Amino acid sequence: MEITSETHSQHISKQFNHELEELKTHLMAMGGQVEKQVQDAIHALLEGDTRLAEEVCDNDQAVNDMQIKIDEECTRVLARRQPAASDLRLVLAVIRATSDLERIGDEASKIARNALALAEAGRGTPKGVIEVRHISEHVRKMVRDALTAFARFDTQLALSVAREDELVDNEYTTAMRSLMTFMMEDPRSISSILSVMWILRALERIGDHADNLAEYVVYLVKGLDIRHIDADKLDEAALKGKG
Amino acid sequence: MEITSETHSQHISKQFNHELEELKTHLMAMGGQVEKQVQDAIHALLEGDTRLAEEVCDNDQAVNDMQIKIDEECTRVLARRQPAASDLRLVLAVIRATSDLERIGDEASKIARNALALAEAGRGTPKGVIEVRHISEHVRKMVRDALTAFARFDTQLALSVAREDELVDNEYTTAMRSLMTFMMEDPRSISSILSVMWILRALERIGDHADNLAEYVVYLVKGLDIRHIDADKLDEAALKGKG
Repeated sequence: MEITSETHSQHISKQFNHELEELKTHLMAMGGQVEKQVQDAIHALLEGDTRLAEEVCDNDQAVNDMQIKIDEECTRVLARRQPAASDLRLVLAVIRATSDLERIGDEASKIARNALALAEAGRGTPKGVIEVRHISEHVRKMVRDALTAFARFDTQLALSVAREDELVDNEYTTAMRSLMTFMMEDPRSISSILSVMWILRALERIGDHADNLAEYVVYLVKGLDIRHIDADKLDEAALKGKG
Repeated sequence: MEITSETHSQHISKQFNHELEELKTHLMAMGGQVEKQVQDAIHALLEGDTRLAEEVCDNDQAVNDMQIKIDEECTRVLARRQPAASDLRLVLAVIRATSDLERIGDEASKIARNALALAEAGRGTPKGVIEVRHISEHVRKMVRDALTAFARFDTQLALSVAREDELVDNEYTTAMRSLMTFMMEDPRSISSILSVMWILRALERIGDHADNLAEYVVYLVKGLDIRHIDADKLDEAALKGKG
């Protein structure tokens, strides 16, 4: 059966329903924290704000702790409530989602560390910053939309995230090619351009993780595992879902 | 309670026991397939074997399919058997492990794609190949040991994988620095050295995933979540485990 926000409110056990809602709330809190980490890392890079970059690195542990805590909650719900059908899918989707959120947090730290390296090298605005700004806006929107899709069980929004990921991958490939050209033209800039490349790489990975989050929403709502299905076949697959 | 291979054989329900054993068997089969993908990708690179590189790319879908299949099996076991305690941990550890194995498969594909790019550029043996060979042997051992540790519920072997990961990270950092120097010395080699850098990066990521697999073994056996604990504190943490 396809689920909506309402079906989850119809549990006989109010306490069980409350626990499932809590899981979602905690996942959203973790998502909010991770979004902030990405935003701060990019801001630190673009503004050369080393203090903020260090803060992002320091805050990564808090994200990791949230993952452990939510996963423990999920395990408790599985053991005590023995959920079935859509409730089981919700718990499994939350477990998978914390893993991707934690990795987005890791990527934000990598961006912050490279921002620090660039600031230390202190050679002014590095090449490729326009591309970073552009792709980072795209990727942040993907993370935000994936989390909203999760909160609202919105498969249409989730599918739009998957389509967005293809755009980001194309932008990433183009940007990497330009950066390689810059390197060849000015070998003295190799070190700083490599830092920008690692940042772009981290952004591209964040896009992939947002895409994963979106896939869990479809799994959660439709009971359909769409991992490893191409984006252009996704609409069809989602419509044919067991929902 | 700490579990051993034996405890899992003492289920009242023979059928349930069989299902749990099947899960482990299928995970090991997926692990074997992924190990082969990594081995083939490295072999393709070192021998300039483009046909083998293409094969690795083609075979990635089979790994993805294995993940979906095993995850479905896990979901069925959770729904039908409602496992508790160490059985629940086994199922959750398998779900987490398929995710890391699938990502190791992705990294093997990336290595194969970069091996193809290097072969097409056709500029002879690229710089950094010695480092790739060395780190790849290390990383392949980590994957093999992590899988063995999973199969045997061997936490000591699992902890050795975590320690190995620190070595690999150090070797990776050193190799990347040498490659950057090569680039600066010979800007015409930038493109091929970048390919080697992506390959090293993929290997380093494979090491991280092997480390994750090892952490699930400790979780599985000791009921202790050691993700995000530094390797040098691991022995202590594992000994204090709830086991």
